[in-house]
Amino acid sequence: MDDVVLAVDLGGTNLRMAAVTRDGQIIAHARTPSQKDWTAAGLIATLGRLADECGCVSGSDRRVVGFGVGVPANFNAEGVLTHVTNLPNLTGMNLKAEVSAKFGVPVVLENDATAATIGENWLGASRDVRDSLMLTLGTGVGGGIIIDNEPFRGIDGTAGRLGHICVEPDGYPCGCGNRGCIEQYASATAIVRMAREKDLEVQNSLDVYNLAKIGDERALDVFKTMGRYLGITLGGLVNALNPEMIVLGGGVATGMDAFSGHLRAELNKRAFHEPADRVQIVKGELKDNAGILGVAHSAFPA
Amino acid sequence: MDDVVLAVDLGGTNLRMAAVTRDGQIIAHARTPSQKDWTAAGLIATLGRLADECGCVSGSDRRVVGFGVGVPANFNAEGVLTHVTNLPNLTGMNLKAEVSAKFGVPVVLENDATAATIGENWLGASRDVRDSLMLTLGTGVGGGIIIDNEPFRGIDGTAGRLGHICVEPDGYPCGCGNRGCIEQYASATAIVRMAREKDLEVQNSLDVYNLAKIGDERALDVFKTMGRYLGITLGGLVNALNPEMIVLGGGVATGMDAFSGHLRAELNKRAFHEPADRVQIVKGELKDNAGILGVAHSAFPA
Repeated sequence: MDDVVLAVDLGGTNLRMAAVTRDGQIIAHARTPSQKDWTAAGLIATLGRLADECGCVSGSDRRVVGFGVGVPANFNAEGVLTHVTNLPNLTGMNLKAEVSAKFGVPVVLENDATAATIGENWLGASRDVRDSLMLTLGTGVGGGIIIDNEPFRGIDGTAGRLGHICVEPDGYPCGCGNRGCIEQYASATAIVRMAREKDLEVQNSLDVYNLAKIGDERALDVFKTMGRYLGITLGGLVNALNPEMIVLGGGVATGMDAFSGHLRAELNKRAFHEPADRVQIVKGELKDNAGILGVAHSAFPA
Repeated sequence: MDDVVLAVDLGGTNLRMAAVTRDGQIIAHARTPSQKDWTAAGLIATLGRLADECGCVSGSDRRVVGFGVGVPANFNAEGVLTHVTNLPNLTGMNLKAEVSAKFGVPVVLENDATAATIGENWLGASRDVRDSLMLTLGTGVGGGIIIDNEPFRGIDGTAGRLGHICVEPDGYPCGCGNRGCIEQYASATAIVRMAREKDLEVQNSLDVYNLAKIGDERALDVFKTMGRYLGITLGGLVNALNPEMIVLGGGVATGMDAFSGHLRAELNKRAFHEPADRVQIVKGELKDNAGILGVAHSAFPA
């Protein structure tokens, strides 16, 4: 009998589930498109279906010992979701209690970016360092902090929201209510916005990246701006926290070559020499599985 | 026989020493003006004289069990000072080795702002919380981080340089090589500079404070700008670290009523509700003794 946890990445686009062993092997996985109008009941039914697809039904040789969910939302200590931007009907749902009632196992919730940060520290880019940060550059910018190989959550569990550090006081308005957050300069959404402000006709950040790769000046300029702003924010974090490594994840990090030079140049100008020389800025290694593996790690009973 | 440590605050203006008991009582103290042209030998001789003034000579009933120095500088793991801006001849001095040779006891060095942060966490404003930050608003802006009642130093010991987080990308040049650091908007030096930019004739930040107290519009505006920038920086730190408390120390914090309203309003606009509601922004309680007591705490053998 294999002990596994069921690990879920509840994204705005896809709901993904994996059965993960204690050593981080993904032995089954399933996915389904996320439904904008999901209710609590609809989500729970869907999780049950995906668990069946993962072969974790009664009578199978896989014993489910825990359940973890990475959520693009805040939640309180009881497990009630707050502000689920992309799946609005789930706001107010006690995800922890409802999943626990359905599957009869302990449930842990993690912020999705914290989950990715834990995953990279367990099995990915930052597995050999003790103190690291991660920024996930996707639709938004998420963040996570690892201190002494443990996620640093803060008194209310809200620590690590690195995407909502202000980098431009009077800058672009952010969905969080702030202005000029780094999310507004380093997310895929921001890259598309900045490209369109230069009259580039693009559908997504990959289009901007591809234009930059063929030398389009406006696209190159978008990544110069993006890299500079990200370097300023990371420079501040390097001065504040002296991390060994900063991991960049999410889709935008895939095209890191378009901005990493600008980022590093700016960081080196902005931060003290010793911590700037120390910090490695690297791409995540686990790609889409970072969050799944991170939440699996959290869900395994100690 | 009382066990004491000798705790030193090596400031650009004054060199202060205190004999401190294990429970934080200052049982003797001495001070002398700092000499800009101090050499290593001159500093060591002066420390010997101040120790005598503190009554810690051989044959006394005070047994010195440790020695701590808070320095306005960086230093490496061996104890060699680097970049002592205000006491340039001390750059390159192995302060740890020379003090140890002179006094025959273990020596610890602390960054001065880290020392103040430790002091406030031991006996001052943040003594009842586990996770806190401190910013010292003086000639410059220093910082320190306490996590789980321990100073967080980072891999190279350079963590906590919160004064050198950029708040204005193209802002005023900073001595650290960066631009637009919060030090350039929230230090005493910055307050005087901003006041003079408005043609106010002031000698120091207290003059600006006194003008603000009698309703001078330009002085009020300086503190509005200062409070706003500090609120932006603290908002980012609140989103990143979710601290229970942020302690403000240094001379500028004495006049906190001139800017705390602007600071809090800006922080509440910029940070997520839950950590913003959580964080207490308070004045340090130990005043000039924060650093002395902090370094004494570090210097006591475990």
